This record gives sequence, structure tokens and C-alpha cells, in this order.
Amino acid sequence: MEETITVEDRKYMRAAIELANESVERGGGPFGAVIVKDGEIVAGSSNSVTLDNDPTAHAEVNTIRQACKKLKTFDLSDCTIYTSCEPCPMCLGAIYWARLRHIYYGNTRTDAANIGFADNFIYEELERDLTDRTVPITHMMGDEAIATFRRWEAKADKTEY
Amino acid sequence: MEETITVEDRKYMRAAIELANESVERGGGPFGAVIVKDGEIVAGSSNSVTLDNDPTAHAEVNTIRQACKKLKTFDLSDCTIYTSCEPCPMCLGAIYWARLRHIYYGNTRTDAANIGFADNFIYEELERDLTDRTVPITHMMGDEAIATFRRWEAKADKTEY
Repeated sequence: MEETITVEDRKYMRAAIELANESVERGGGPFGAVIVKDGEIVAGSSNSVTLDNDPTAHAEVNTIRQACKKLKTFDLSDCTIYTSCEPCPMCLGAIYWARLRHIYYGNTRTDAANIGFADNFIYEELERDLTDRTVPITHMMGDEAIATFRRWEAKADKTEY
Repeated sequence: MEETITVEDRKYMRAAIELANESVERGGGPFGAVIVKDGEIVAGSSNSVTLDNDPTAHAEVNTIRQACKKLKTFDLSDCTIYTSCEPCPMCLGAIYWARLRHIYYGNTRTDAANIGFADNFIYEELERDLTDRTVPITHMMGDEAIATFRRWEAKADKTEY
């Protein structure tokens, strides 16, 4: 796909990498991301897991949250994300829920594994049957839980997404 | 696994379901979760995606963030999560990053799909090769991005996780 990458794409990716570099200096994780809409960077952030005591504060999640706050929407389908590393399953999930239309990434999940991050391990866990996972996961009280979904279905004025 | 479920487990799951029910009333998504440490509920939240304009604000993510803030840590390895629905890939990723030790869930990803949520679709996407995904994902500038990881590796005083 290298042939489809523009000068603009390289500029945005460089901004994401620069945020990752700044994060390392500041004591955060070595990851950065920017979100672009109509040729403009609308949000940019880096990994602040250890700085903020927030395991969900990956660069992509932080940047999605920032972009949504700025644009006052939970739908970023007119936006693209540039991230200095391939999104982990949590961030890829967040990207799908935010409906971002294109993902560009620099480092790979293997590069991340090589410096000690669990991205690749979590990808492997997700593909396993629930009974084969490392973290035990137990189904219970489905009969009571389903009543909430019935209530949701019956609600006339709900905001779907 | 039904035999291993205790009266306490049922109490915590009922609290998660109740948060999900309250959320539907309030106009949020039909999902709730609680996190338990040493027999005490330390955090509980529901899905606020549409209320907060935050696509990452699923019940599990909200509850993990709340628990970490309260306990002042990014490591919840002494905690268990009870969620009214099987975690989506984003939330399962968050649970792994937070190192929660056990997951209990009520509704399944299929139940969620049946009322229009994309959980199951995203699980399928994650298992696909990058080239077969619905959202285009492009690798670029790995040669520049890797320099950040080298910098991270060389840093003596980093906080790893």
C-alpha cells in the first residue's frame, strides 16, 4: 500500500511520532496519535497510562476522546487516525466504535511485543474460545440480564449507535 | 461453570444489571458493570457513549477508570469485574491491560448483536488479516516510528506496565 501514501499522510504520521517522542521524555508510554478531519489535525495525544493511573489511556483512546469532545460527537466517520504503533485490541475496538474511516500506523504489534508490551498477547487471547483464555470468564444470570435488553428494545426515544 | 457461582457473585452481578437498568431509564446504553475488591464494590458505572459523546465510554471502561482513580493505581490485579454483558473487544482489551483477575458476565455478544450492537462484528474484524478488514489500515514510516521504541528501551527511569 506504500504507493497510496501522500506527503500529507507523512506529515500527520510525523506529528503522531513526535507526540510519542515527547511522551517518552515526559515519562509516559512510547505511543502517540493524531486525528485528522478535512486536512486539519483536530486532536493529538499520547499514552498516559502510568502518568494518569488509567490503563485505558492509550494514545488512540485519549485522542478519540479528545476529538469527540472537541467535535461534540461520538461519530468520527469523517476522520482518519494516524498512530505511531498498530492499535492494540482495545484501541482497535475504540476506533471501530468511533467509526474512524482509515487507520495509518508506524510500529507493528511485533515491534511493541519486542519492547515488552502485551498487544500481541491480547490479540491472541481474543481469538481464543472463552474457556481457553488466561483470565477466567464466567457466564451467569443471563436470564436476569436479558431483561435490560428487552427494556432497551421497548424504549421509544433511545439514542442508538 | 454454574456450580462455582456464589451468593456474593449473584449480588455483584445484580448490582451491575441494576446499573444497566438505570442507564436505560437515563438515556444511556443498556450496559452496567461493577468492580469488586476484597468483597466490596469499589466502582460501578454504565454505558455513557451517547450521553458523554465518548465512544470509549462503555460500562467496563468507565468502571475501570473509576476504580483506578479511587485506588490510585493502573493495576487492578486484586479485583474482579461483573458486567451485565460480555465485554466487547475494546473492553476485553481494557480488562487485560488493567489485569483484572476474573470476569463475570450476563448477556452474551450474540444477545448484544440481536439488539443492534456491533460487538460480534468487531470480534470478527479483529480476527481478520489486516488486508481483509472493513476499515482500511495502512502501515507506513516504520523506520521513523521505531526510533521512539529505541529511545524508550534506552531510558533508565521508565515506568513499565
